[in-house]
Amino acid sequence: MPWRVEIEDLPDVARGAAFLGSGGGGNPYIGRLMVERAIRETGRPLELLTLDELPDDALVIPTAMMGAPTCIVEKLPEGMEAARSLQRLEEHLGRKATATMPIEAGGVNSMIPLVVGLRLGLPIVDADGMGRAFPELFHETFHIYGVSGTPMVVSNDHGDATLVETRDNIMMEWLARGITIRMGGVAYIAEYAMDGATAKRVSVDGTIGMALRIGRAIREAREQHRDPFAGLIDALEGTTYAPAEVIFSGKIVEVYRRTEEGFAKGTVVIRELGDAPNEMVIDFQNENLIAMVGGEVVAVVPNLINILDAETAEPITTEELRYGQRVTVMVVSVPPIMRTPEALAVWGPRPFGFDVDFVELA
Amino acid sequence: MPWRVEIEDLPDVARGAAFLGSGGGGNPYIGRLMVERAIRETGRPLELLTLDELPDDALVIPTAMMGAPTCIVEKLPEGMEAARSLQRLEEHLGRKATATMPIEAGGVNSMIPLVVGLRLGLPIVDADGMGRAFPELFHETFHIYGVSGTPMVVSNDHGDATLVETRDNIMMEWLARGITIRMGGVAYIAEYAMDGATAKRVSVDGTIGMALRIGRAIREAREQHRDPFAGLIDALEGTTYAPAEVIFSGKIVEVYRRTEEGFAKGTVVIRELGDAPNEMVIDFQNENLIAMVGGEVVAVVPNLINILDAETAEPITTEELRYGQRVTVMVVSVPPIMRTPEALAVWGPRPFGFDVDFVELA
Repeated sequence: MPWRVEIEDLPDVARGAAFLGSGGGGNPYIGRLMVERAIRETGRPLELLTLDELPDDALVIPTAMMGAPTCIVEKLPEGMEAARSLQRLEEHLGRKATATMPIEAGGVNSMIPLVVGLRLGLPIVDADGMGRAFPELFHETFHIYGVSGTPMVVSNDHGDATLVETRDNIMMEWLARGITIRMGGVAYIAEYAMDGATAKRVSVDGTIGMALRIGRAIREAREQHRDPFAGLIDALEGTTYAPAEVIFSGKIVEVYRRTEEGFAKGTVVIRELGDAPNEMVIDFQNENLIAMVGGEVVAVVPNLINILDAETAEPITTEELRYGQRVTVMVVSVPPIMRTPEALAVWGPRPFGFDVDFVELA
Repeated sequence: MPWRVEIEDLPDVARGAAFLGSGGGGNPYIGRLMVERAIRETGRPLELLTLDELPDDALVIPTAMMGAPTCIVEKLPEGMEAARSLQRLEEHLGRKATATMPIEAGGVNSMIPLVVGLRLGLPIVDADGMGRAFPELFHETFHIYGVSGTPMVVSNDHGDATLVETRDNIMMEWLARGITIRMGGVAYIAEYAMDGATAKRVSVDGTIGMALRIGRAIREAREQHRDPFAGLIDALEGTTYAPAEVIFSGKIVEVYRRTEEGFAKGTVVIRELGDAPNEMVIDFQNENLIAMVGGEVVAVVPNLINILDAETAEPITTEELRYGQRVTVMVVSVPPIMRTPEALAVWGPRPFGFDVDFVELA
């Protein structure tokens, strides 16, 4: 059954998407405002298709914002940008899309396809290609399980557009990143066009619904004056995002951040309160990638590593990390499709340059 | 009347094109070899159309190699690359090209369209869009007189291709340069597609014929043991590339060169022989842009500033400049279409950052 996201659910979806984003995926607040405006202006309901409702011969065109989160918060979208990328790709393919879907679950990029669907009157598929956020365009289950990302469209808010066709998805990322940088650090993309049968095989299922569940659990725990971290762990139990556990709490004492090669890269250091405190060091490239305490690795990709406000459990994206914030760090297991040997070969710790093995959460 | 370039004329055309290139346009030797091979492999004659023979409703698609000359000499083309960019643009336009033409007169880029024409069996128009070589894609009479450079195709020898559509030709250059850099510093382009009537209005006429005339004058003077510089000046007299004069002779004592932002940028210092020698300093960005002696400007763009071997008058492109070379520097006036106020606003000395006025050669 198609299910509906009501306008009052949007803050929960945005919060949950930021959680799945694992520090990346861009600012969820901006995305939520865009969706609210699109609902109001179009008068359309926000209806989601589940993967199994998608006809095998449907044409799905995923859409997203591309760029460093540090740039995304400085260049707010007007609303039709990603829709225009989709339309440009339709023109090239000579065929209309049946639906759009997110390429990643995270912040603004869980929201962009909702805006596209509302603006163009297209259904949105409740699934995505990362099951979280990741920094590069080949960090996709779509890529891992054999779909070509190109032809893709990279466009901006000034009517500049490029249609990119490459030998492989690695070169696609390389060229699209260069174009995004020259467009000012932010662009809007339509890529990995595929049929419904393929989408069913290669997507991470139900991640918008999962975002709603996560965001709602945090809010309800707060409203009921329960521990939001415990509420979150309970809500995830029995889902494909389990187990989840709290691994650290403390105060941010250092943030190194640079926008480099089109990515927000850096390191955050969190110190425990009290005497003889331990320090956790987390490295990020748009998303949190690895967490270490005393030089020992305690969490790595693709598991989610989340830095949350210590009081409210509100997810803090990497571009929002600040000295002095009191935070709690959670690690969360991810669905099986994201932990296969093929998947770990693309986004396990090693491809990011960390000489450690992936470890399943017990 | 269409005219024919014979295989034995090619060394003269290549030498003359290098001269028109004013230090840029890429290595002419590589281009000549490509044309020779294309003549041999296709068995086709190399026929050029004059601008006035072009039907008004013809579709002309100019083709070129894009990139820093320092990279071009390291990544030799196979022969079909630029032809594939043209074909990709034809596909997008839904129409076959009637002819191709050079975008610039200079080194390899006078030759690439000849290769494209031979390989695809297309006529080549004896004209171009710069009347010399210049570093950027908006340094075109096509741009100056109102033609949109996009849709354009930027592709490489690995089957990667991008179709670029931008708000203006400045953004086209910016994106295409970024793509070229990410393609390894060299790419193949098809751009400024236009009809025959437009091509007649906005092109610099007869520059392939001019290259042949220049290259032949240098060779014949050498063969007849005459001064090749005097021979060259005589050959240019009465053409649109007159007057021409020798402005300096000496030895190269310094070459600073860096490949930066996809361009070969630098400075060369030439010292006179003898006591109390003057020094000439020439700044280049792919092409020679300005020549100064004792801090005084003696030649500026768009006039040609050519560094030639002091013995043979062989043009030396900027990537081939070396310490110790004995050289003679010539400055050459350019056709009126290249010296209008509109043209000087794009490629006079000021847009290149030099705070001096353009001065006509007497």
